[in-house]
Amino acid sequence: MSEKPRVAIIMGSQSDWPTMQRAADMLDTLEVTYDARIVSAHRTPDRLVDFAKSAEEEGFKVVIAGAGGAAHLPGMVASMTHLPVLGVPVQSRALSGQDSLLSIVQMPAGIPVGTLAIGEAGAANAGLLAASILSTSDEGLADRLKAFRAKQTQSVAERPTSD
Amino acid sequence: MSEKPRVAIIMGSQSDWPTMQRAADMLDTLEVTYDARIVSAHRTPDRLVDFAKSAEEEGFKVVIAGAGGAAHLPGMVASMTHLPVLGVPVQSRALSGQDSLLSIVQMPAGIPVGTLAIGEAGAANAGLLAASILSTSDEGLADRLKAFRAKQTQSVAERPTSD
Amino acid sequence: MSEKPRVAIIMGSQSDWPTMQRAADMLDTLEVTYDARIVSAHRTPDRLVDFAKSAEEEGFKVVIAGAGGAAHLPGMVASMTHLPVLGVPVQSRALSGQDSLLSIVQMPAGIPVGTLAIGEAGAANAGLLAASILSTSDEGLADRLKAFRAKQTQSVAERPTSD
Amino acid sequence: MSEKPRVAIIMGSQSDWPTMQRAADMLDTLEVTYDARIVSAHRTPDRLVDFAKSAEEEGFKVVIAGAGGAAHLPGMVASMTHLPVLGVPVQSRALSGQDSLLSIVQMPAGIPVGTLAIGEAGAANAGLLAASILSTSDEGLADRLKAFRAKQTQSVAERPTSD
Amino acid sequence: MSEKPRVAIIMGSQSDWPTMQRAADMLDTLEVTYDARIVSAHRTPDRLVDFAKSAEEEGFKVVIAGAGGAAHLPGMVASMTHLPVLGVPVQSRALSGQDSLLSIVQMPAGIPVGTLAIGEAGAANAGLLAASILSTSDEGLADRLKAFRAKQTQSVAERPTSD
Amino acid sequence: MSEKPRVAIIMGSQSDWPTMQRAADMLDTLEVTYDARIVSAHRTPDRLVDFAKSAEEEGFKVVIAGAGGAAHLPGMVASMTHLPVLGVPVQSRALSGQDSLLSIVQMPAGIPVGTLAIGEAGAANAGLLAASILSTSDEGLADRLKAFRAKQTQSVAERPTSD
Amino acid sequence: MSEKPRVAIIMGSQSDWPTMQRAADMLDTLEVTYDARIVSAHRTPDRLVDFAKSAEEEGFKVVIAGAGGAAHLPGMVASMTHLPVLGVPVQSRALSGQDSLLSIVQMPAGIPVGTLAIGEAGAANAGLLAASILSTSDEGLADRLKAFRAKQTQSVAERPTSD
Amino acid sequence: MSEKPRVAIIMGSQSDWPTMQRAADMLDTLEVTYDARIVSAHRTPDRLVDFAKSAEEEGFKVVIAGAGGAAHLPGMVASMTHLPVLGVPVQSRALSGQDSLLSIVQMPAGIPVGTLAIGEAGAANAGLLAASILSTSDEGLADRLKAFRAKQTQSVAERPTSD
Repeated sequence: MSEKPRVAIIMGSQSDWPTMQRAADMLDTLEVTYDARIVSAHRTPDRLVDFAKSAEEEGFKVVIAGAGGAAHLPGMVASMTHLPVLGVPVQSRALSGQDSLLSIVQMPAGIPVGTLAIGEAGAANAGLLAASILSTSDEGLADRLKAFRAKQTQSVAERPTSD
Repeated sequence: MSEKPRVAIIMGSQSDWPTMQRAADMLDTLEVTYDARIVSAHRTPDRLVDFAKSAEEEGFKVVIAGAGGAAHLPGMVASMTHLPVLGVPVQSRALSGQDSLLSIVQMPAGIPVGTLAIGEAGAANAGLLAASILSTSDEGLADRLKAFRAKQTQSVAERPTSD
Repeated sequence: MSEKPRVAIIMGSQSDWPTMQRAADMLDTLEVTYDARIVSAHRTPDRLVDFAKSAEEEGFKVVIAGAGGAAHLPGMVASMTHLPVLGVPVQSRALSGQDSLLSIVQMPAGIPVGTLAIGEAGAANAGLLAASILSTSDEGLADRLKAFRAKQTQSVAERPTSD
Repeated sequence: MSEKPRVAIIMGSQSDWPTMQRAADMLDTLEVTYDARIVSAHRTPDRLVDFAKSAEEEGFKVVIAGAGGAAHLPGMVASMTHLPVLGVPVQSRALSGQDSLLSIVQMPAGIPVGTLAIGEAGAANAGLLAASILSTSDEGLADRLKAFRAKQTQSVAERPTSD
Repeated sequence: MSEKPRVAIIMGSQSDWPTMQRAADMLDTLEVTYDARIVSAHRTPDRLVDFAKSAEEEGFKVVIAGAGGAAHLPGMVASMTHLPVLGVPVQSRALSGQDSLLSIVQMPAGIPVGTLAIGEAGAANAGLLAASILSTSDEGLADRLKAFRAKQTQSVAERPTSD
Repeated sequence: MSEKPRVAIIMGSQSDWPTMQRAADMLDTLEVTYDARIVSAHRTPDRLVDFAKSAEEEGFKVVIAGAGGAAHLPGMVASMTHLPVLGVPVQSRALSGQDSLLSIVQMPAGIPVGTLAIGEAGAANAGLLAASILSTSDEGLADRLKAFRAKQTQSVAERPTSD
Repeated sequence: MSEKPRVAIIMGSQSDWPTMQRAADMLDTLEVTYDARIVSAHRTPDRLVDFAKSAEEEGFKVVIAGAGGAAHLPGMVASMTHLPVLGVPVQSRALSGQDSLLSIVQMPAGIPVGTLAIGEAGAANAGLLAASILSTSDEGLADRLKAFRAKQTQSVAERPTSD
Repeated sequence: MSEKPRVAIIMGSQSDWPTMQRAADMLDTLEVTYDARIVSAHRTPDRLVDFAKSAEEEGFKVVIAGAGGAAHLPGMVASMTHLPVLGVPVQSRALSGQDSLLSIVQMPAGIPVGTLAIGEAGAANAGLLAASILSTSDEGLADRLKAFRAKQTQSVAERPTSD
């Protein structure tokens, strides 16, 4: 495993961290290095440009970006890098993340964002998908990923219990 | 009236022009100078940054930005200028502009975009609202605006006609 | 800075005030004078007409109007003044402000309302956008606005913290 | 039957007439007098106030109001009269009348609008409901209404036919 | 005021009563007699038919029907009486009354239901609209209604208060 | 195979037949007898009651009911019979069947309607599901159903073709 | 009553059990045997295939499948058995079951899933509909079902009570 | 470039090909090998299992799966492989792809699908994102991807043209 973090987890604000931490936890579980940062498309646009333009050079292979409401962070990062960008719609207050989802997934042809589910499940899956992407050229990670998936399958009980 | 255009009309692609032309037509009617440009948040992010950061210096007083789908243009311009930014949700193919509307209007606290209706009505109204903003310090324009509104009122027939 | 309030903050009922106070707070921060009033389109239509028709004469330069549900206040004020009207969709009980948003933003061509996000973020941004509009002819305010925005940018932490 | 029209059919613009004519046709069928007018809440607010405040005096017993998009006409008339107001959401271009429906039906407590379905079916039913309201004190009309309903029932075929 | 109740308030289940009681309260305020009953379209279809077919004979002039989810009560009553039927969409658990609203308002041409807002505001307004309908042939009630509306207008404070 | 039709296909109006014919076609294919009738919940409520109450006695084992808009037919039939009722939401004009779907599927506990997809696919599947229900006690039909499904599987090409 | 369970109740995870238990309770009430199991389409795809392919041989006559979010369980079981499959959309966190509903009901022609309401009402009704299906060839069950329905009708009070 | 196709493009039916061909075109442009197949989750579940379980062995590195309506294909493939799966919501008839989108994106934690926009733009972006994923370990492809993106940026005109 390389020294440099391979995955960047960025988010629009501190308030997105409880959601996005699920991505970090998943990468920890799969022993994938990452760096978590706050990059606000709207409040820190220069930081956004700096991050996106130097992400490849910094050694990142995949970017996970979470944001809520008019969520522009994933798409704007994707506009400035050819690295795979995964978007996590953070659940918003009034519209429960419907705005976040549409703002992230409905990108025009030419600039892709691989979008996950609204909220914590989506964040966890962004971690998993980032690992899956890296595993296409990392057999050790592919093995860890398969083991994780097998364990997940085994953990499902046969029957529901009432308490 | 100043020589330099006072309003910038920007849009994400050529395909937004049939919609956004309604804003230009309105500004023509009210004798407000403008400049119409294509600035794609996703395909030309550098142009976006250049535009937003130099808009004030170029002499623009108001920015009208139209985009469809995951419409990031209005919000990203607003993140890089303190000028008033008006957003026009262009009607999208699958979701009829619901995605455009939410992507533009649901901005987080700190970065405002004054959003108009989906499609041509919204574009025309963006032109009107830009004129209204400028009229707060331009009495001649205020007079033209009032005259336009009065004429509009007078043009409404008393009764519907079947043919 | 003029003695007379430059911005009118109106709302449909007392219950909208916890939301709309965010607009007032923002104007306080930016040292923009304002007056907050209750004007119900439905319960006090005469007050609505009086307000809208005398707003310019009273010295207001911008109107911020917040309402929820079938929110008619912003659009009806806009129908009776050429001043810029900004609409804030207050979060409603059953539909979470989706009704408020569509009732405010989907205005027909000819009568613009610059619409902000649902709820408190939208109210704060209405205050900011009103200041932005006034700053087009008030350099001091433009400077305060730029300073506010710069401070906002600086306040964004580099990394998320778990507690 | 009185000489003065008993029902007012008003609409926001000429373009609503093809929809609202269904209300007129229904009233013709049931021999209820009406007057059809264009009253735009947004473009002719004075006409709106004049209409609403004199509707009772003009002799109208019921008001049918049709509008599309941010449809403020029915609710604003209702705010200025105690007469029963029936609202017809006209099908809008981008949002197919979902905006019209919510703008009309989601009125706050205190100002009712009896809302019908989106589009032509809603307009026809507004005519029927107006007749139903009048029939509560007009036995002749009640009889015509019952006859209409009975005929309608009889006109339903037993089995579908393929051509 | 007549001895027999003039308005029927019916609802699909006991759980709708906290909502529908707002209609009863309004009718109490306006001194309109009513009778409140549970009539479930789905669990008591015979009671539904009995009620709808004898409503006129029982002396009811207006029917207010409240229901939630796949709300069939208002429309089914309307199918069996020519009396004016007002529908109140009760706020449902999963979909917040969006299902109730569409199930009630989207009636086909020929069978009208005058639909009010989702939840308590809609119930209160159903009471008001029923009174308004009756007032078309009851001057005393018209006067009480106008007085109620005037009082409502006067009760709106001029300015919001923070506590 | 019995002489009496085993499945009733009912629909709200002649205009639903192009959709509902897909259910009939499927039953023809599977050699299941059926009878197709127009039963309008709203325009022919007596016919609805008669049909629902005699459906078992007539020998029907399953009812397929299609309707659009405020679609009350499936639920009202279900309220008056213990036979399995399958509901088909017919695609409506303004809301594309979203109203039809919610009006049919969101039934309260106690009265089930097994709901299929909006439009023709749903109608075809209602035919299939009716056959599936009957096949639980009809081995010959179970065999025909399995053969149909096997053939359907075999008919799927391996690769897409551009023309 | 046969020894082998006649209905399979399957669900995507333990967290669906509080909802799906309503189906089990209903089957208990109607003395229909069932077996409840966890079968996750996504975490245990082999178990899904095994279940679906052996369901008929195991003696099941009807399958009730509950799942939330991108709910694939009902449709995937239906793709591998000709038995009737009933789907219950479990209420999801962000989108309140709208995603669950559409993922279950919008099946393509050829593979039917009889879909019930979102949440507990839908689960109870899935139990009822399963019993209804079995009752088409089980007179004892038909009698119990009719008795249940009659009792349900009798349990509806005539009038609402305030406490 | 390897002989074996690196990307699998699968779709639920021939009717999805006009949409999914955009993915193939993009991979052609970027010189990425692929194989396009029809795999119906619902009509060919065995083919689905065979495909998903042998995808890694066949040499595929990324799977692009397109489907409409209750779109189960992407999620079910993801449940049986650790390879990255990208989902394309095909625009559906009644609900314009809203059902397809939610059925694909709202996956539970543990099984990720990277979801793109509804329709052709989403399909083109799935091709781009697959290339982006492969480019994390293929410098030649990374160069082609960067060149494509640069060319795309250059192709954006400065100003809109009216014809």
